[in-house]
Parts: sequence; C-alpha cells; structure tokens
Amino acid sequence: MKRKVILLGASGSIGTQTLEIIQKYPDEFELIGISVGRNTSRLVEILMAYPTIRYAYSIESVPGLVLKYPQIRFYNGEKGLEELASVKEADLFVNALVGFTGFIPSLRIIENGIDLALANKETLVAGGEIIKKALKNSASRLYPIDSEHSAIWQCLHGNETKEVSRLIITASGGSFRDRTREELEGVTVEQALHHPNWSMGAKITIDSATMMNKGFEMIEARWLFGVMPDDIEIVVHPQSIIHSMVAFKDGSVKAQLGLPDMHLPIRYALGLPDGRLASDCRKMTIEDMANLTLERPDFDKFPLLGTAYAAARTGGTAPCVMNAANEIAVAAFLKDEIGFTDIYRIIDTTMAQAHLVKHPTYDDYVASNDEARAIATQLTTNN
Amino acid sequence: MKRKVILLGASGSIGTQTLEIIQKYPDEFELIGISVGRNTSRLVEILMAYPTIRYAYSIESVPGLVLKYPQIRFYNGEKGLEELASVKEADLFVNALVGFTGFIPSLRIIENGIDLALANKETLVAGGEIIKKALKNSASRLYPIDSEHSAIWQCLHGNETKEVSRLIITASGGSFRDRTREELEGVTVEQALHHPNWSMGAKITIDSATMMNKGFEMIEARWLFGVMPDDIEIVVHPQSIIHSMVAFKDGSVKAQLGLPDMHLPIRYALGLPDGRLASDCRKMTIEDMANLTLERPDFDKFPLLGTAYAAARTGGTAPCVMNAANEIAVAAFLKDEIGFTDIYRIIDTTMAQAHLVKHPTYDDYVASNDEARAIATQLTTNN
Repeated sequence: MKRKVILLGASGSIGTQTLEIIQKYPDEFELIGISVGRNTSRLVEILMAYPTIRYAYSIESVPGLVLKYPQIRFYNGEKGLEELASVKEADLFVNALVGFTGFIPSLRIIENGIDLALANKETLVAGGEIIKKALKNSASRLYPIDSEHSAIWQCLHGNETKEVSRLIITASGGSFRDRTREELEGVTVEQALHHPNWSMGAKITIDSATMMNKGFEMIEARWLFGVMPDDIEIVVHPQSIIHSMVAFKDGSVKAQLGLPDMHLPIRYALGLPDGRLASDCRKMTIEDMANLTLERPDFDKFPLLGTAYAAARTGGTAPCVMNAANEIAVAAFLKDEIGFTDIYRIIDTTMAQAHLVKHPTYDDYVASNDEARAIATQLTTNN
Repeated sequence: MKRKVILLGASGSIGTQTLEIIQKYPDEFELIGISVGRNTSRLVEILMAYPTIRYAYSIESVPGLVLKYPQIRFYNGEKGLEELASVKEADLFVNALVGFTGFIPSLRIIENGIDLALANKETLVAGGEIIKKALKNSASRLYPIDSEHSAIWQCLHGNETKEVSRLIITASGGSFRDRTREELEGVTVEQALHHPNWSMGAKITIDSATMMNKGFEMIEARWLFGVMPDDIEIVVHPQSIIHSMVAFKDGSVKAQLGLPDMHLPIRYALGLPDGRLASDCRKMTIEDMANLTLERPDFDKFPLLGTAYAAARTGGTAPCVMNAANEIAVAAFLKDEIGFTDIYRIIDTTMAQAHLVKHPTYDDYVASNDEARAIATQLTTNN
C-alpha cells in the first residue's frame, strides 16, 4: 500500500531531493502535503507537478492558488506549519525544515504517532530530551536522514545498543580543512560556501566549514542512539565515502559507505521500515574507495567542536542556546555583517550570557531559544 | 545457560585461539569435546587444562590417556572423527579442521541439528551444495568463522539477501603482493610462509600467497549467502583492516573493520545467536584506520583467482577437484618438492583431467576428491 507523505521544507535542498525520490517510486509513495517558506514560485511548480497534494503551507497566503486549487487546504502564518504538522492523514512526515522552526512540527508529528523521517537537525540538537520522551509515549518511529546518522542507523541495524562501545562520526572537514586558524580570519562568504564534496544548503555549508555541524550531529546521535557524548568520536575523512561508523564492545567496527549523494540516506529513510528501495543510481566502484583516510580533527582550529561537547555534557538548554546563537551568527556571516571566526566568538559569548535551565520544559526551550537569539543578535549588531 | 562446545581441530591455529576464548568466558561455554590429529602432546595439555572434556579424538590411540581419564570417551582412526562429530550432547561444534577431512564432520553436525561455527573452508568449497541442502532440512545454524565471511555476516545482519547487490571480499594480497609474476617463479617456502598481517597455519598462509584462499572464500560466500559468483568481487586491501563489505541495491555499502586478529571473528561466531561477547582486547583506534586502500587484484599474477571463478561457474564437482589438487600441491610445495608457480599448473592440469559430475551426490564428492588427489599426486611426483 502506498504511504501518504507530507514533506516539510519542500523548496530546500533536502526537500528537492525528497521530491525526486517520491517521483521515482510512484508505487510506494503518494505526496499529500508540502510546506515551503517564502518561495511561493516553487510552491506553484510543486503543486503543478504533484496533483495528489491536499495540504500546503507557505508563510504568506497566495490568493491565486487558493482559487486554482479548491481541493487543497492551505495553511499560512506563524501557526500554520504546526497545523500542517498535525494532519493525521499522513503515514510519514519528512521534516526537511532548516532551523529551530523544525522543532515544534517534529514534536506534533511524534505526539500524533506518525512516522518521521528527520533531516531537521535542530529538532534533536535543541530539544532532544523532549523528543526522546515524546517518542517513548508514541508509536511514531524516527528515521534519521542525515548521511552520518543514516550510516550509524544502518550499522546498528540488527545490533543492540548495549553492544555498542562508541560511535564514530565522519567529517569531510568542510571548506577550510587545509587552512590554518589564522587564515580563517579573513575568509569570504563565497569561499565558505564552496564545499569540497557535498552539495547542500547555505546554512549547512557554513556549519560544515565551522564544523559546528559535527557538534550538532554528535548531539543528535546522543539522542537518536542513546550513546553518551564522550563515547561519540568525530573524525576527519576528506573523501566523504565512509559516512560514519559504530565500534562494538567485542572490538568489531561497522562502517557505512556510499558516494556523497544525499539521495541515498533520504531513500533509505523513506524505505524504512520495509527495507531498501532498489535504485538505478550510479553504484560505487572500487576506484571510488581506492584511498580512504581518517584523522583526528583539530579542536584548536575548529573550537566549536569543543563548544558542542561542553554543551552536550552540560545538557539542559545549553545545546538549544548554542544552536540559536549559531543560527543568528551564520545568518549574519552570510549577509557579510560579521567575519567567519566571529561566529565562534558570538556563540561562546551567547552561551556565557544566556540563562541555563538544567531540566527544561517545552516552554523553557522556547524561552531559551528566544533569549539566545536576542543576545546573539545584539552581539552581531555590536560587532 | 552454558553452551556445551565440541572443538574439532583443537591443536591448530584457530583451535588454539578458540580454546583461549572458551577459557575467557567460563559462564558462557563448557568445552566437552576436542579433536587433534597427530599432535598427542597437545592433546595431553588440553585434557589437563579443561577437566570438563568428555569426548576426545586423536588419529592414533594414546593408551596412557585412556587409563588416566576413564570418564572420557576416546575416538581414533579413520571413522573416529565422524563419530565425535555425531555426539548429540553438544550445543555447538566448532569445526577448525584443515582440509577435506572437515567436510563429513560438518555434514553430520548439521544432520543432527546442532549449531556449527565453521572455520573449515573445504566444507563449503568442496561440498557447498550438499551442505546447503542439509541446512534446509535442519534446525542447525551455520556461523562462519573466517574473518571475511564473519564481516559479510555482520554487514548483512538485519538486512535481507534480496537487498544485496554484490559482496566485496577483501584480500591482503598475501606474502607476494608486490612481486611480479616472474619473481614468483623462484620464491622459497620460507618467503611464502611470511604473511604481512595475519598469523595463520602453514596451509592457509600458502593459500593466501597464491590467492587461492580468496577463490575459496568467494565459493564459500556463494553458498553461505546465496549470492552468485559473478556478484562477488575480490579486492586487494593490504592493511587487512576492512575485513569485507556488502553493497546493497540502493547504492549503500556496509563494511566491517577490525584489527587483524582471528580472535574477533571466532568470538563473534561463538557469541551467536545471542550477540557480541564484550572483550578487553585492544580496541582499534583512528590511527589504525588512518590509511585504507583498495584496488583490483591482478588476475594474471594470481591465476588461481580466475581458476576459482571458472570452477564456481561450472559448479558440480569442479570446486571439489580444485580444492583436492590444491591440498596436494600446497603440501608438495611445503615439502619443497615443487616450485611456487607449479601449484597453479598442477591445479589447472588436475581440473582438466578429472571427471566432472554436474549434479554430484555425496559419494560423487568423495570419489571426485580421491580422483583429484591421485591425479595431483601423480603430477607432483612427475614434476
């Protein structure tokens, strides 16, 4: 039977690739809903291409569409995304939203017992503890879309968490792997947006250049797989072929490999729990794997790695604050308002200034996110 | 509850390491039986160290032991090994015999519905088709001990065979990876016995130097995992850290890695089906994995790879003949009666001369093995 899918964040990079996959497997999936942000021209295109859509969100209403598609229920505004996330007709949500905006939809989806394929990092980085609790009381299954977490998920498949000794998250090292700390001071937005292996959205490409993304992934892995931060290792693997690894208590290590193409982890998440969707994608050859290198990352050059471990160990609202400060700082860097290494400083200063709630409620997270954004915005403006 | 284990081939390399593991996990295993070949001094040592032994085999009877251990049932002679393999008290047999000798015991163990951890390659190389049929009618579970098949088993865990696109068996490349075909003509036994990564028995080390072992492993994998020979790839990986891989139909590849230490796959096989046995063995670090290379093997330099694929495609008694000829040729090389590259010639000539039975019965295998040994012995003597 076809699974009814609602895709949040349809106009972004992951959203676009998810649409391609849904189109490739018409016997498996029926797209019944989408969300975009401000990109209403993309909304128009998607509605034309997928006549099965019955639910659609955009930040602002598009009156022409409402007239053209009377069968579609349109959502808008601040609460609209949460309303779309609460549609119970779906069998599977794909949350490809970028930023803290993705957190509340994830929570609603899980509360409604619907399966969730999750690309939104902030859901677990900011609110992992609450999400974990919600999952315990829900029939919802959470499938990671990130290539690293998909890799760990695939390696763990058939094994038990108690057999795990540590998780090894691989990092390409980002755009600036080979620069010195000093050379990082003056890098431009254009340089930072040039990722050596992966084609991703702007925000995530900058997070990759600062290696903040690996800090996020470590925190996500902590919640997804129930492994403590100090048992999660980050290693630099410039070829981006090994997507992550799991070390077991008997000395064995499993790795998942693949070409650096987000279609693979998206396809894997969409295929769950039934199994892998066969694909005619280009298959990896021995030549693609000819030289694989692994090395420890430089915590001095990429201090946000240390910041992330500290936030993860502290727990409570600390990762939420770190994430909020990062969103503001990266946005400011992309607008050329601050320098690259200012991102580090703004995050650390925000974390030092924001209140820490050790055992936050949902409202604490929202307040913490707001407070951190305000502090970081202030720091950015004063830069 | 403790599992009662009978270990066939206790005095060899795998046997010795299996004993170490059984000793390390006294709450998990009780050793109730062993076999040795001619090494009766080792038999004496093992009986002293493991007072739980109630069944013991050696080729020749040792009257002193029979008097000293009245509680032990001793087996000897040509049929004795088969009788030991038919003991129904065991929960698990470990078959670490070397050579075709290991085939009949494997068959009896499976027919009796007892689990089998298999290190004996010839069981599946020579008689894979019969073993496969026997498994279908049995509650017995077959667990591979070879590092390569253990790796594939671990990668497949939780996945289905229909999801598999191909298997990738890694090869260290053996002692002579960097020599030219011409340089191989004059190599000595001592040189061939010097394996760069693995400490193994003499026969298997020579099979590694000719890469015949990889041909065997391809054939074993064909029967263990139900994947056709042409969907099994052999790749050279000189570091012996990646122990093998599985490529899936969705483009994903899983690999199992570990230090080159046979304790790991033995421990994994012994832990099945319950799960991994935690170990205080040295854990692999990022530095151990710092540089991993993969390349296609040179079929001109190692022609037995091509011979093995041809035998696998032909099927019937062809792999059995190849194996028998290899046993004779390697034994002759180890006794310095023939040169290294004569091994190739003897195997190919034997395969050309022996009768091929396309759909062999058990008796056909035995006759085929005998015929091939006779032909190969003749060729060796005439050398």
